[in-house]
Amino acid sequence: MQKLVDKIKKLNIKVLDKKEDIYPYAFDTAPLKNKITPPLCVCFPKTTEDIQKLIIFASKNGLNIVPRGAATCHTSGCKPNDKSIVLHLSLMDKILDFNKEDLTIKVEPYVTVKKIQETVEKEGLFFPPDPSNLAVSTIGGAVALSSGGPRAFKYGTTKDFVINLKVVLPSGEIIETGSNVAKNVTGYNLTQLFTGSEGTLGVISEVTLKLIPKPEKRRVTLCYFDTLLSAAKGVNDVINALIVPSTLDLLDKNTLQTIEKYNPTGLLCDKEAALLIEVDGSSAKIEEDNKKLYKVLQKSGAVKIIQSTSEEENEKIWKARRSAYAAVTKIKPNVATEDVVVNRSKIVPLVEGIQEISAKYNITVCIMGHAGDGNIHPNFALVLSDEKEKENFEKVKEELFKLAIELGGSLSGEHGIGSEKKPYLDFALQDTALKYMKEIKKLFDPNNIMNPDKMF
Amino acid sequence: MQKLVDKIKKLNIKVLDKKEDIYPYAFDTAPLKNKITPPLCVCFPKTTEDIQKLIIFASKNGLNIVPRGAATCHTSGCKPNDKSIVLHLSLMDKILDFNKEDLTIKVEPYVTVKKIQETVEKEGLFFPPDPSNLAVSTIGGAVALSSGGPRAFKYGTTKDFVINLKVVLPSGEIIETGSNVAKNVTGYNLTQLFTGSEGTLGVISEVTLKLIPKPEKRRVTLCYFDTLLSAAKGVNDVINALIVPSTLDLLDKNTLQTIEKYNPTGLLCDKEAALLIEVDGSSAKIEEDNKKLYKVLQKSGAVKIIQSTSEEENEKIWKARRSAYAAVTKIKPNVATEDVVVNRSKIVPLVEGIQEISAKYNITVCIMGHAGDGNIHPNFALVLSDEKEKENFEKVKEELFKLAIELGGSLSGEHGIGSEKKPYLDFALQDTALKYMKEIKKLFDPNNIMNPDKMF
Repeated sequence: MQKLVDKIKKLNIKVLDKKEDIYPYAFDTAPLKNKITPPLCVCFPKTTEDIQKLIIFASKNGLNIVPRGAATCHTSGCKPNDKSIVLHLSLMDKILDFNKEDLTIKVEPYVTVKKIQETVEKEGLFFPPDPSNLAVSTIGGAVALSSGGPRAFKYGTTKDFVINLKVVLPSGEIIETGSNVAKNVTGYNLTQLFTGSEGTLGVISEVTLKLIPKPEKRRVTLCYFDTLLSAAKGVNDVINALIVPSTLDLLDKNTLQTIEKYNPTGLLCDKEAALLIEVDGSSAKIEEDNKKLYKVLQKSGAVKIIQSTSEEENEKIWKARRSAYAAVTKIKPNVATEDVVVNRSKIVPLVEGIQEISAKYNITVCIMGHAGDGNIHPNFALVLSDEKEKENFEKVKEELFKLAIELGGSLSGEHGIGSEKKPYLDFALQDTALKYMKEIKKLFDPNNIMNPDKMF
Repeated sequence: MQKLVDKIKKLNIKVLDKKEDIYPYAFDTAPLKNKITPPLCVCFPKTTEDIQKLIIFASKNGLNIVPRGAATCHTSGCKPNDKSIVLHLSLMDKILDFNKEDLTIKVEPYVTVKKIQETVEKEGLFFPPDPSNLAVSTIGGAVALSSGGPRAFKYGTTKDFVINLKVVLPSGEIIETGSNVAKNVTGYNLTQLFTGSEGTLGVISEVTLKLIPKPEKRRVTLCYFDTLLSAAKGVNDVINALIVPSTLDLLDKNTLQTIEKYNPTGLLCDKEAALLIEVDGSSAKIEEDNKKLYKVLQKSGAVKIIQSTSEEENEKIWKARRSAYAAVTKIKPNVATEDVVVNRSKIVPLVEGIQEISAKYNITVCIMGHAGDGNIHPNFALVLSDEKEKENFEKVKEELFKLAIELGGSLSGEHGIGSEKKPYLDFALQDTALKYMKEIKKLFDPNNIMNPDKMF
């Protein structure tokens, strides 16, 4: 194997192969469970052609390629094996073309979501997807998983903004999947085939996104309910009132308590549930929406309603919401963030089911989620060094996924399948669908060199 | 062949095979050019299982399947050959499940876009895609082509609303491509692979769409410009002012004159271009948008600005706009509606180029389009019985498509490729992209029994 690494070093691409250097590339933000296997080496391509060289090298030498962005995916989506060349894309972090008039931006894969947002917002434009880790999350990763975030309810997820990708295929061929125009039905939609494919079909080396005009303002409403059922009713009542919030998030009591303990901002900790609702647009629209929201939520049974009146107040509420994951890490050393989706009418049975399952196995859970699109994230606080707890958590996961599917839902709304949910994929997919997905994988990657052991 | 038809008749599915009955199924709304070949027969399946029977029968007997909705696609997308079983889906026109709470509707393929809109709008919900022929256009066809319409600028095209499809594959297998939840990243995005695939990968037998809350009101601004350039500037100025109209359509002088001659409503016929801009939302938002629009358009050089103040006035303006195609049919017996896309910054060179090319070959053209997303529709008035004109039109088309590609654009925004644009597909697509598309076709349809000779 050392010989292969020596050959890679001659490719004129930065390589790491010392044990201490490559160890951090053995895992991502999913909780560690098994033996850790570092990759063969970590390479830092600078160009599409560098990626191509490495893919061709891997293909000829029985190695595999694991592309890696910020590794914030929670699903072991970039976990290597001992034959892996990890492609760390950190040297491909340039904005290639920001075309304000055409409302498009073309970037390299390691540009962060936040950088994209800041760049375009300066010019009055908007890239809505906002995964929680957006300060570090890279666009390559966001496209690979079709990441969402709280604003997906109004604006959709990353997939809804990708119009073209440059991808290096396992064959070494370079493909452009679409075209740099917003509307296009010329041939099959390869762009959407690669979006969300978790690095299993090729390495994304350029991303072209469409942008929209930036809403003038945003305001947040935080409201509390005595029961989960009345909070769920609140969600429906808001939608029935023809309000289209950008965010419609739900937080359960455990989440409220955990956040408040970690970072006290005055959240009410004796309520069963809270909704965090953001509306955006012009001043007049926001004023109108907020008045309507207040009335509707009061009628739905909200026991306290707080509406922000400035960007500072927005930020204060959002900061509390965004600290939810960090707060859970204070309870116990490990946190597993799960991600399931159901239809909105099934949120109450899903949340109650998660609470029951967790109680049954004595696992602490804080539940939050994007209630507007039925996308629920239970954060499990765990001590994974405790074998019994580890075993129990496996049971919780299996029952959680089965419950989501039984309720007509799906395994993932925005985190993807990775290695973590691979064993459960057949819960969610029909045999025929799974068979054809595997055939598509085989078509693009007959030797299975791209991010092996993920998804299938 | 008659023996095969006799066998089909035993499948307990309605069949037409008399010459006079099947003749209308030989073409669609694309102008007739060549010898007309009616299909072997026309079948009217009632269920997914009926479709399955017919596909298996075709596969075993060397026949092919041509699915057909309202046939309004302009691209000969449902043109059969003499071995075709046309699947006319008119008996599959039921709304299967309208779930107001979950904002989804599941329908059979022959439900019209208008029927879907009327059904959901009664309950305060909204399905935005609005192809011009929406009164007859079926959702199966809209999904097969990812149809758009004027509202695509704000809301996207059909693909942005499809969340699940039931499809009968060429193998006879029945697949569900997604799941009935709005947000889903569980496996590859088969839903988007089938959407826009023009019936070449299977027959869609059920469609699940996501819905959004209905905007309260809409208002139209019609404004005129002395030059195409100032109209294009108007489009950009509107977007730079952070207004997000639902529609941002452009009409050239020839289009204005032709509509006004056919259906006089007082359009100004001496102006080079007009913009039709619709905003929607609450009363307050519309009032604010319209005030802004007025100022911005005045500054851009609009010489006259008319803003509707009621739904009746909206309809009057929209009726004129929608009659554009019908109006062109009054000039000459044949009309060919083309469909190309460029980035918004390239609209002026595209429109001027189309005018030049048409003048060069002495072909009458009325140009309109969805300027907001750079999607331009030239309507060519033709006498196709005139061999010279027919020949000239072929040259116009070739030059038009080359121009769109040279300007960085694409071959189709919403009409698809069909048979008509098949010869030009390699202008628009890289060899590698085309190769993999053909491989995907082969993977699903190794014997090429699904809508042959379309797209590739």
